[in-house]
Amino acid sequence: MDTNTVLDLMWILIAGILVFFMQAGFTLVETGFTRSKNTGNIIMKNLMDFCIGSIAFWAIGYTFMYGDSEGVFGSFIGRPSWFFDNPAEMHSLFFQTVFAATAATIVSGAIAERTKFTTYLIFSLLMTLIIYPISGHWVWQSGGWLAKLGFTDFAGSTVVHSVGGWASLVAAFMVGPRLGKYTDGKSNAIPGHNLLIGSLGIFILWFGWFGFNAGSQLAISGDNANVVAGIIITTNLAAAAGALSAMFITWIIYGRPDISMTLNGVLAGLVAVTAGCAAVSPFGAFMIGLIAGVVVVFSIEFVDKKLKIDDPVGAVSVHGVTGALGTLLVGVFATDGGLLYGGGFHKLGVQAIGVISVAAWAIGASFVVLFILKKTIGLRVSKEEEVDGLDIHEHKTNVYN
Amino acid sequence: MDTNTVLDLMWILIAGILVFFMQAGFTLVETGFTRSKNTGNIIMKNLMDFCIGSIAFWAIGYTFMYGDSEGVFGSFIGRPSWFFDNPAEMHSLFFQTVFAATAATIVSGAIAERTKFTTYLIFSLLMTLIIYPISGHWVWQSGGWLAKLGFTDFAGSTVVHSVGGWASLVAAFMVGPRLGKYTDGKSNAIPGHNLLIGSLGIFILWFGWFGFNAGSQLAISGDNANVVAGIIITTNLAAAAGALSAMFITWIIYGRPDISMTLNGVLAGLVAVTAGCAAVSPFGAFMIGLIAGVVVVFSIEFVDKKLKIDDPVGAVSVHGVTGALGTLLVGVFATDGGLLYGGGFHKLGVQAIGVISVAAWAIGASFVVLFILKKTIGLRVSKEEEVDGLDIHEHKTNVYN
Amino acid sequence: MDTNTVLDLMWILIAGILVFFMQAGFTLVETGFTRSKNTGNIIMKNLMDFCIGSIAFWAIGYTFMYGDSEGVFGSFIGRPSWFFDNPAEMHSLFFQTVFAATAATIVSGAIAERTKFTTYLIFSLLMTLIIYPISGHWVWQSGGWLAKLGFTDFAGSTVVHSVGGWASLVAAFMVGPRLGKYTDGKSNAIPGHNLLIGSLGIFILWFGWFGFNAGSQLAISGDNANVVAGIIITTNLAAAAGALSAMFITWIIYGRPDISMTLNGVLAGLVAVTAGCAAVSPFGAFMIGLIAGVVVVFSIEFVDKKLKIDDPVGAVSVHGVTGALGTLLVGVFATDGGLLYGGGFHKLGVQAIGVISVAAWAIGASFVVLFILKKTIGLRVSKEEEVDGLDIHEHKTNVYN
Repeated sequence: MDTNTVLDLMWILIAGILVFFMQAGFTLVETGFTRSKNTGNIIMKNLMDFCIGSIAFWAIGYTFMYGDSEGVFGSFIGRPSWFFDNPAEMHSLFFQTVFAATAATIVSGAIAERTKFTTYLIFSLLMTLIIYPISGHWVWQSGGWLAKLGFTDFAGSTVVHSVGGWASLVAAFMVGPRLGKYTDGKSNAIPGHNLLIGSLGIFILWFGWFGFNAGSQLAISGDNANVVAGIIITTNLAAAAGALSAMFITWIIYGRPDISMTLNGVLAGLVAVTAGCAAVSPFGAFMIGLIAGVVVVFSIEFVDKKLKIDDPVGAVSVHGVTGALGTLLVGVFATDGGLLYGGGFHKLGVQAIGVISVAAWAIGASFVVLFILKKTIGLRVSKEEEVDGLDIHEHKTNVYN
Repeated sequence: MDTNTVLDLMWILIAGILVFFMQAGFTLVETGFTRSKNTGNIIMKNLMDFCIGSIAFWAIGYTFMYGDSEGVFGSFIGRPSWFFDNPAEMHSLFFQTVFAATAATIVSGAIAERTKFTTYLIFSLLMTLIIYPISGHWVWQSGGWLAKLGFTDFAGSTVVHSVGGWASLVAAFMVGPRLGKYTDGKSNAIPGHNLLIGSLGIFILWFGWFGFNAGSQLAISGDNANVVAGIIITTNLAAAAGALSAMFITWIIYGRPDISMTLNGVLAGLVAVTAGCAAVSPFGAFMIGLIAGVVVVFSIEFVDKKLKIDDPVGAVSVHGVTGALGTLLVGVFATDGGLLYGGGFHKLGVQAIGVISVAAWAIGASFVVLFILKKTIGLRVSKEEEVDGLDIHEHKTNVYN
Repeated sequence: MDTNTVLDLMWILIAGILVFFMQAGFTLVETGFTRSKNTGNIIMKNLMDFCIGSIAFWAIGYTFMYGDSEGVFGSFIGRPSWFFDNPAEMHSLFFQTVFAATAATIVSGAIAERTKFTTYLIFSLLMTLIIYPISGHWVWQSGGWLAKLGFTDFAGSTVVHSVGGWASLVAAFMVGPRLGKYTDGKSNAIPGHNLLIGSLGIFILWFGWFGFNAGSQLAISGDNANVVAGIIITTNLAAAAGALSAMFITWIIYGRPDISMTLNGVLAGLVAVTAGCAAVSPFGAFMIGLIAGVVVVFSIEFVDKKLKIDDPVGAVSVHGVTGALGTLLVGVFATDGGLLYGGGFHKLGVQAIGVISVAAWAIGASFVVLFILKKTIGLRVSKEEEVDGLDIHEHKTNVYN
């Protein structure tokens, strides 16, 4: 193998290892933002969706996503093959596995504290096996129909985060709110049990996101090195700007720099810049982060108070809404083709088509899966289990002693 | 230095840094799985075994392991030299130091909550200085007798983990069970104080293990890159499979998906695949993980309830038993020489010789060291110290306030 | 771009990502070593100093530091330019940003639990924008006056850590001690609320420090690879030795191996070796660590009991004193020019000039900024806020529920 290929593989593997570590970040954010009586259940969900996802994606999901486009249903799904083991593409299997697992794990937060463990495991399996690979195929396989249309989603604001976010929306709606969340038509805050652990999760996610975005260049040799460095800067500036604007907007509207919302502002900036991290300037990334940090605050309020959908960690807003937003903003800020750079509305239009198509798929497919699960094994634990906590009933354990 | 060598060194250094971080993982697993009154003592043990180990291994241990085989006692021990400082091998010293420290730190968990701090420090020093380097020399120095026999332990299921695990067995037996652990011949569960911290530890260990296994290729240039990528996949699949089978087996036999056991299943898969991660296919790794996840559950039960040896974190089973198991399974699943691939029983026989010889050394040497420590400064804290907690007595501190 | 440049950029980026993660380490150390009622405030300070710093350093700070020396005031400050976006230097902007943020975040610990949030944000902004880049320019821009003098501060014992440490001294003095810290002329210990979280922070800092020091070679191609490997070894040995000597000295003088002091010993070793990590032998690094681990214990006692300056996390001693110490020790242990290697007092003299000049700048500039802040918006929260905790008043949140 020549040196450039070695460099590229090494970079992809290191980036993939960083993305793997985001699983720890998701676990901490989700446990920290929820109540201690369900911590063990959330650990198990976050751990097992990665384990099941790793196996399922290797077993067949990877080829649904990256298999030949002309195989089965044209450019809708890749030609599947079992137990992928091409020695020359193990780096790719690994990098794509950790991405698939990210999409799956997002949903776990939105339906935390009241969903049956078995139901979640099955949903998570189907997410990694079917839902994520199919829309992923449209965008990231060169023969996919959105790829051919010129849709830009560099590292997955839409392919990974929005898919997770829209599936979260459907799931949180169908599972219903936690007991006591809405009383007399009013939304009651249910505070998380450990914001410090949650904030460590945010730092870990930010750390891993450098791998997520900069690894998605899938190369570092030659002039790719400068592109990779640029992506790391755009990623960092968007995260910083997202935190900053979320903090200031809560300071203005709530009268305090809100901790949870500022932490979500980091994620909003990261999710939003993911689509365009290689296409925008540092200044563009800064603007995308600023916008995302404001939007995520209003979106979380809207989902919570207007839609009355109970999403304990704000997954719908953080991943779905800012994922879509960031993908659209590529049409505005991309230095090649964006509205602000003389590109007109064409790019923005293509981005909108991509955002809407993938959302429709994620919502539709999640609904079908969850509807079947609801009618068979059920989505929700009993009242008693929910009141006592899922740890005691589902796992017969206390996390804290 | 030519580009290929730079690539290889860079990979070894990055992998070594990841392995270093496993020390944090061990600290969190061990503190999370034990009681809060001993947390500070466990932090100090895990920190100081790494510090003392780093210094001891540099001072002389490294050369006991990698020094010339013909020097002192034939292929039993390397020719020692003081304060290793060959500028061309600093990468190797670092990578091997973090491995040595891993072997040492395993024991700390098995004798947690009742062992004297000074005794532990001395044992840990001798572990890194003598016990680990000698059996390591047999396997990983090209002139070592097990190396010459064709014994395969790619990244240390036996050299690192089993040595730590068997030393744990001896140490836990000689120190004796914690007060209240066995009453009326019955084993009482002593739950850990923070499973969330423990699970963060598991994620960190998994993260670091990519460096542990894939770094052990000691190269990434040329065709090594594909080997490295393959190791990352086998490592990941074995961990995922270990968690999966541990979860299902506890669901069947206990009636619940047990959290602690599932977390141990991850480690079991990782430990087991460590010997053969470069020699087996993804499917082989998956099978090794599945087997290890089941075996570790029964082994923990057996050590706890039948042998009545009190091992608070399951170190004997996780590192000793699954380390041995994984090393033996190389003789079954290795695509070159394994039983399933037409290799007959030869490979399996060689693996068994290695497993048994190293176990005998680790058990014998640990026994001698601990026996001397028992007869001199003693192994165990007083009853009062154990009841009140080691933090108050040994360190005069509360970790939580 | 040629292969060597790609290798160097890749190394700088990976190292920078590790340094980024140190922000999580600082957050955990600082929250763990203080009381739970102020945890949210500390999270916000640590998060926002990085966010504001990332934006400010990109906006203009980077050019104050690395801009042309002949531009504005000779070799005092670099020629500024707005919104740095040279695509060929994005890797450098990233690496230097995470360094600037490290200097800023150090101060947060020294003034924890009683400083106004707004005041901290403004101070932190000016730290990254003005204070840090100017003395940094003197040392790390080739045209800077200390650089021209031959002052050695390889990775920033002085440029980063002492600047943060001396700013901490001024800030902790001007803000004044926490309520109840000194009564009847006696210093009362105010124990931190979670040493386990603090110790995880230490491990994360150590992990990130490999990037901090070894990344500062700014290259890994060719013979740089061995230099990088050597830096990793000197860094690791100094940290280990710092912990060891801090532990033994507390065992001797307090009668117990003190946990907090041992953890600070790790940091002392790391801070001290940072200046000379590329200039000293492994043995020199070991000695520097041993010395730093002892000095930090006495320095923390001195600041606390003699100066009566309340520094909750020991930032003045850990970063200021051992940073200065380590920089001076380069004049003793550097294999090229150090006192012990026949270099005479010349090198030591130059090191002293650098240490004193940078300290004078950091102290003077911090004083001016903090004096203005004191006279305008004030430094300190009200008594009521301090007693109840800053989380409730400044952020209207409880971190733990």
